[in-house]
Amino acid sequence: MSVIERIGKALEPLMLVMGLVSPIATLPQIYKLYFSHTEHAAGLSLTTWVLYSFIAMLWTIYGLYHKNPTIWVGNGLGFLMYLAMVAGIIVRVGMTF
Amino acid sequence: MSVIERIGKALEPLMLVMGLVSPIATLPQIYKLYFSHTEHAAGLSLTTWVLYSFIAMLWTIYGLYHKNPTIWVGNGLGFLMYLAMVAGIIVRVGMTF
Repeated sequence: MSVIERIGKALEPLMLVMGLVSPIATLPQIYKLYFSHTEHAAGLSLTTWVLYSFIAMLWTIYGLYHKNPTIWVGNGLGFLMYLAMVAGIIVRVGMTF
Repeated sequence: MSVIERIGKALEPLMLVMGLVSPIATLPQIYKLYFSHTEHAAGLSLTTWVLYSFIAMLWTIYGLYHKNPTIWVGNGLGFLMYLAMVAGIIVRVGMTF
């Protein structure tokens, strides 16, 4: 069995968890923006985080449409996290790219 | 037809494109890190971008295992983008959270 087959098979029951890792992994980035490194907010791309939010919102709707929690749970949480990034950047820096 | 149904149905043929938006949306963030706002690199969370890379790598493997380009194309490109963020943060800041 190849490495790809091994890992692919092992991931099968972990899809919902995997969908939650990236949203939760955004917390240290939010912490830096809001609390510990606010003076560096200009280094964050408003474009990037707006598009991350938009795509997470579309996936959330898509997951709800298919009644598939594996899709909408992680993306719903992701949408809130990325939106927090967008809000923080706008508050600290205003308009930027 | 509800709004969720309308949008969900409209997204169906766009899955591969949707998977590419977030990776491509990372380009302005990479540009800020490498070129225009290098002095603000400390505001970027190494933890966040390492985990984004790791999860994109797992999804890429999962997509290859299922021979599903909708999953592996976007995540493969995402993996490269997030890895570029990781490399840039380490080069500019060294170890950080």
